[in-house]
Amino acid sequence: MNNKHLNELFEFLSIPSISAQSEYKKDIKQACLWLEKKLKKLDFEVDIIKTKGQPLIYAERFLNKEFPTVLVYGHYDVQSPDPLEEWSSNPFKPEVRSGNIYARGASDDKGQLFTWIAATEDLGEKCELNLKFIIEGEEEVGSENFDDFVHDNKALLSADICVISDSHAISPTQPLISYGLRGIAYFEVSVETMPKDVHSGIYGGNVANPAIILSQIISKMKSEDGKININGIYKDVRKLTGHERALLSKLPFGEKEVLKETGAIDVLGESGFSVHERAGARPALDVNGIWAGYTLEGQKTIIPGAAHAKISMRLVPDQDPYEIEKNFRKFVSDSTPAYAKSKVKTLSLNKPVIMDIKNSYFKKAEKALTKVFGSKPIYELSGGTIGAASAIKNILGIDSILMGYGLPDDGLHSPNEKLSLEMFEKGINANKIFLFG
Amino acid sequence: MNNKHLNELFEFLSIPSISAQSEYKKDIKQACLWLEKKLKKLDFEVDIIKTKGQPLIYAERFLNKEFPTVLVYGHYDVQSPDPLEEWSSNPFKPEVRSGNIYARGASDDKGQLFTWIAATEDLGEKCELNLKFIIEGEEEVGSENFDDFVHDNKALLSADICVISDSHAISPTQPLISYGLRGIAYFEVSVETMPKDVHSGIYGGNVANPAIILSQIISKMKSEDGKININGIYKDVRKLTGHERALLSKLPFGEKEVLKETGAIDVLGESGFSVHERAGARPALDVNGIWAGYTLEGQKTIIPGAAHAKISMRLVPDQDPYEIEKNFRKFVSDSTPAYAKSKVKTLSLNKPVIMDIKNSYFKKAEKALTKVFGSKPIYELSGGTIGAASAIKNILGIDSILMGYGLPDDGLHSPNEKLSLEMFEKGINANKIFLFG
Repeated sequence: MNNKHLNELFEFLSIPSISAQSEYKKDIKQACLWLEKKLKKLDFEVDIIKTKGQPLIYAERFLNKEFPTVLVYGHYDVQSPDPLEEWSSNPFKPEVRSGNIYARGASDDKGQLFTWIAATEDLGEKCELNLKFIIEGEEEVGSENFDDFVHDNKALLSADICVISDSHAISPTQPLISYGLRGIAYFEVSVETMPKDVHSGIYGGNVANPAIILSQIISKMKSEDGKININGIYKDVRKLTGHERALLSKLPFGEKEVLKETGAIDVLGESGFSVHERAGARPALDVNGIWAGYTLEGQKTIIPGAAHAKISMRLVPDQDPYEIEKNFRKFVSDSTPAYAKSKVKTLSLNKPVIMDIKNSYFKKAEKALTKVFGSKPIYELSGGTIGAASAIKNILGIDSILMGYGLPDDGLHSPNEKLSLEMFEKGINANKIFLFG
Repeated sequence: MNNKHLNELFEFLSIPSISAQSEYKKDIKQACLWLEKKLKKLDFEVDIIKTKGQPLIYAERFLNKEFPTVLVYGHYDVQSPDPLEEWSSNPFKPEVRSGNIYARGASDDKGQLFTWIAATEDLGEKCELNLKFIIEGEEEVGSENFDDFVHDNKALLSADICVISDSHAISPTQPLISYGLRGIAYFEVSVETMPKDVHSGIYGGNVANPAIILSQIISKMKSEDGKININGIYKDVRKLTGHERALLSKLPFGEKEVLKETGAIDVLGESGFSVHERAGARPALDVNGIWAGYTLEGQKTIIPGAAHAKISMRLVPDQDPYEIEKNFRKFVSDSTPAYAKSKVKTLSLNKPVIMDIKNSYFKKAEKALTKVFGSKPIYELSGGTIGAASAIKNILGIDSILMGYGLPDDGLHSPNEKLSLEMFEKGINANKIFLFG
C-alpha cells in the first residue's frame, strides 16, 4: 500500500459527514465534493444526485463494452460520535495507534469504501471490468431515499454483480462473506400525559407519569426469555436449512466472542437458538435510546409531561417491515392506558435480504480473498442492515457480495471506532485481484 | 406597594442562582451578596455562612429584648429553567404581563421571600418583634447541609415561631396555611450491562439492553392501581383523624383543580383516597427523569451500555426516609437480573413534618391573612417538601407557619413560572400586620 492512499483516507475521515443531525449539512456536501473530485481524477463520470435527504454519488467508467459491469456500493455518511468524552482521540482527527486508524467512519464505511477507490487507482487501465459506484449519504439513517432512486434508475444501475465492503472479516487471516442481511424497522415512541412538566410535590400521587407508562409499554414488548411480544413477529421468519445451519456453525461467533467484543456481563438471547442464529436468522428488539424529564446533574422535583424512546427491530427473511410496522403501532396503542396518549413515528423500514451464492462472481470473490488472506472465506448471515443491498437485490435483482474488511472489534457506532491498517491493505489487494478479471 | 420593591425583586430574580448545576456557582455567590447588601441596609447583622454545598445567609435584628423573636425562612436558589424553548420570555429577565411577574423563582421562592424583606422595610422601627432571617441556597436540591447547620446552631436560631412563605394560597381571596409537609427520598438509579454502547445489528438478540432492564425495574415499582411496591412503604403512614379529614375536605383541591392546573388527560392516583389525601397524607413515587443511549434527532443503531433514571418518593408522617432508602436500595438490587449490575445514588433524604396548630402564633397569622385577603385561611397538608421546615421542627422544636403567597397555577419548577402582582402586594401587607405585633 502506498502512503498516498492513507493520506487521502485521512482527508475523507476528517469530514464529519453525520447524516442524522441537520447541523452537519455542509459537511455532507463537503464529503460529496471530495468524492466527486477523487473519482473524476480516476476518469469516472461523476454525478452528485439530490434526494429529499442527503445526496447520492453516482460514478461510472466504461473501459470496454465487452467487459462485465461491477456495481460498487458504499456510504459516505457516518454515525454521530457521541458520547464524545469516551473517545481517546478526536473522532474527526484520524490517528494511527498500534497499527489501527482511529476515527469515526474508519471502518463504517469510509475506510472500507476507500479500498475500492484505491484498488481502482492502483490497477489503472489494467482493470478488466466496467465500474459503477453508487455511494449514499443516508445509510446510517435508514437509506430512506435510496429505494426511490433505484426504482427510478434501473437501467443506469444495471450490472452483473454488486460488491459491498461494509462488514467485517473474522480475523486478518480468516475472511468472511455475508450472504444475508437483517432488515430494520426503527421507531420513535412518545407518551404524553400532560402538556408540561409539573411539580412532583404538589401533584405527585394524583397525575400519571409518562416515564412510568413508557417503561410499562417497553417492559411488555419483550419477555424475560427473550421472546418479542409484538403480534405476528415470528410468523414469517424463514427456517434455516440443514445446509445453512452447517455453514453457520463454522462461524467463530459464539458466547465467548460476544463477551469479548462487547464486554457484556453475560450473553442474553432467545432461548433455543445459538448466538449466530440469533444474530442472523432471528428478529431482535432493542431500545436504542430513551429520555424524559430532568437528566442533568443533581435533582429536579418534576413529573415530566412526556417521555420518549427510540425502539428498533432487526428483521430477517421473510419478515415484511410494513406488516411489522402495523403490528408495532397497534401494540403501542393497545398498551397505552386511557390516561395517556402515545404517538409512533416511523424513522425507517428496510427489508431483510438473502443472496444467491451460486452466482459465479462469489467464486471469483472467494478466490481473491483466499489468495490475500491465506484461507477460504466463511459464509454468514449478518445481523446488520444495509438497506441498499436489500434494494439492489429486491428491486434490481442484482446479488451483492459483502466482502468485509473490518474486524469484529472495530467498535462501529461506538466510541474509538477503528480500522486495522493490515485489513485496509489486504482489502485493497483483494479488490485488485477481483477487479483484474 | 411601592415600585421600589418591584424593582428590587426584579434585580434579585435576574440572578440565575440555580443550585443543581455547578456552572452557576458565581450566580449563587451573587445572590448571597445581593441579600447581604439588602439586609444590611435594613440594619440587620448579616453572615454569609459557608457549607459543603451552597452558602446560607443568616441575619438578625434585635430591637428590644422584651420582644418575641420570629425566624423567617426562605431560599434564594431556584430550579433549572429547562426546557428553555417553552418559556415565552427569558426566565432570568423578569417581565410583567397581565398582572403577573414572569421569571424563574418569581413564586418559588425569591418573590415570596421578598414579601418579608419588603414588609420589614415598610414597617421600619414600628416592628414589634425581633427578627432572624435564615435563607438557604439548597432548597431545590434537598437542603443537604441545612440539617447540620441547624444541629450546630440551636442557640443562634432559637425563636418563638418560624414563618415561611414558600407555598400558595387558594386564590387572591382565599388564603391557605399548610400545617404539614411531605418529606422526600430522591435517588439516581443506573443499570449497566456493558462498558460501552454497541452496534444493534451485530449484537441485537445476544446482549441485554439496560434501557429495557431499567424499564422493567421501574414497571415493578408501582402497580397500575397506584400502589407503590417498595417493601414497608405504607407501614408507618399516619392515619388522618376525623377532624383532619373534615379540615382537608374544605380544600378546593379536587380532580377539577388538578386537571385545570396541570392540563393532564385524567387524574390518576391510589384508589380509596381523595385527591387532597393523596397529595398530603399518602406517599407518592415518580420518575423525575430517565435517559439512555441516543436521544438526538433521527436514528442511531446502538444498544446502550447503561441506562439511568432519577426516581423520588414523597413521604408523609411518620415515614422514616432512612428506612425507605434501605428498602428502595433492596428493591432495585432484588429486581436487577444477573446479567446486569445496578447502582443507587441517594440525592436527598428529608423527613416529613407536621405542625402544632394550637400554637398561638397561628391565630396571629390567621388574623393578618383574614384582614388582607377578606376570608379566614383554610388549613392543608401540603404535598411539597421544605426540608428546612422539617429541620426547624424536628431539631429546634419550632413550629413553622406556612403563609403561602403563590397561586396554584404559578408553574413552579415548570416553564413560565409566575407570581401575581396582587399576591405579592397582599403578602407584603399581611406580613406587615403579622410583624406589627
